[in-house]
Amino acid sequence: MELFNYFRSSASWRVRIALALKGLDYDYTAIHLVKKEQLAEDFAAMQASRLVPLLRDGDELLGQSMAIIEYLDETHPEPPLLPADALGRARVRALAQDIACEIHPLNNLRVLRYLVHDMGLSDDQKNRWIRHWIEEGLAVVERKLEAGPAGRFCHGDAPGLADCVLVPQIFNAQRFEARLDHVPRVLRVHEACMTLPAFDQTQPSKCPDAE
Amino acid sequence: MELFNYFRSSASWRVRIALALKGLDYDYTAIHLVKKEQLAEDFAAMQASRLVPLLRDGDELLGQSMAIIEYLDETHPEPPLLPADALGRARVRALAQDIACEIHPLNNLRVLRYLVHDMGLSDDQKNRWIRHWIEEGLAVVERKLEAGPAGRFCHGDAPGLADCVLVPQIFNAQRFEARLDHVPRVLRVHEACMTLPAFDQTQPSKCPDAE
Repeated sequence: MELFNYFRSSASWRVRIALALKGLDYDYTAIHLVKKEQLAEDFAAMQASRLVPLLRDGDELLGQSMAIIEYLDETHPEPPLLPADALGRARVRALAQDIACEIHPLNNLRVLRYLVHDMGLSDDQKNRWIRHWIEEGLAVVERKLEAGPAGRFCHGDAPGLADCVLVPQIFNAQRFEARLDHVPRVLRVHEACMTLPAFDQTQPSKCPDAE
Repeated sequence: MELFNYFRSSASWRVRIALALKGLDYDYTAIHLVKKEQLAEDFAAMQASRLVPLLRDGDELLGQSMAIIEYLDETHPEPPLLPADALGRARVRALAQDIACEIHPLNNLRVLRYLVHDMGLSDDQKNRWIRHWIEEGLAVVERKLEAGPAGRFCHGDAPGLADCVLVPQIFNAQRFEARLDHVPRVLRVHEACMTLPAFDQTQPSKCPDAE
């Protein structure tokens, strides 16, 4: 397999974690988003959305991090990244989507660029925007963790899809100096994840293209 | 089952379509987003995210439209809303996420409110913002439909998860007068969907709380 990704892209990191949890080897191909390499002809020809991550598995090309992780879970079932029961799966998918649909899309690079360059937001406004959605969104995750089954991770005592999505979001939160004192359960899950090599070894600063 | 939703919420409509495709009955409970009923104590106690849709199935509460649809597909398998093969499922999920993660989050009500009230965008800027993400995002879907398997719907000749997500996005596009002449395949799929009662009968204007 070959993963086209960028060290700082949190959607990319989600997939790196999943691949590592599954113990799957892959070639790491860096696509430098700030240099806009995702718009280069050869990458754009493979990826209709011009987004990372993109996974090549044999002749097949797969996009969208959550869809890729579900694909990996279906094609390489051990260890499972989703619970065995439909309700558990629904809870884990919803937690992942609370981040991947409600927080991350508002704060990714192309959106921030558009806010500043096309909507005329100042850097201060941009930072306020970023922190607002992170702080509100993580409060939702915190409430769900409080109501959910006990365990070291988002859903019980094994890491899964929701953890793959949560940890990169916490790194973004820290990078943008969002407030995190209102989400102690989120931080405990994050800490538990970071003790595992699958999370630690795939973090942005340890990627081949890290700057 | 009971669906807490709002006639104009496109995430709500996705679930209404899925329920209708499955032939499942449910009680329709309106949560008026403009009147901020989602923040009322009784709803907030059920839904950590204060978002619609929320599905109650017996004693269980489920959020996030794509997670709900996958849950319905697992608990009521016929007719299937995802393909039988892992690659097909990955493609359909990615298509759904190209809309649900890349377009819709940028244009939902609370985000638009924040842009205007907290970031000081004018109505003209807000409309430009909305149309930008819809037009760019649907161009991605168009390229994927062009590259994908032939068929009347997003993935072959039966409607599924991606169609549940696509159709409400097209209604939003039309409502905000986004350009659509660059996405003829998207429009053909939309038209095919709207010939089906599951899409037509659940559309915003036909909801009990329509205004």
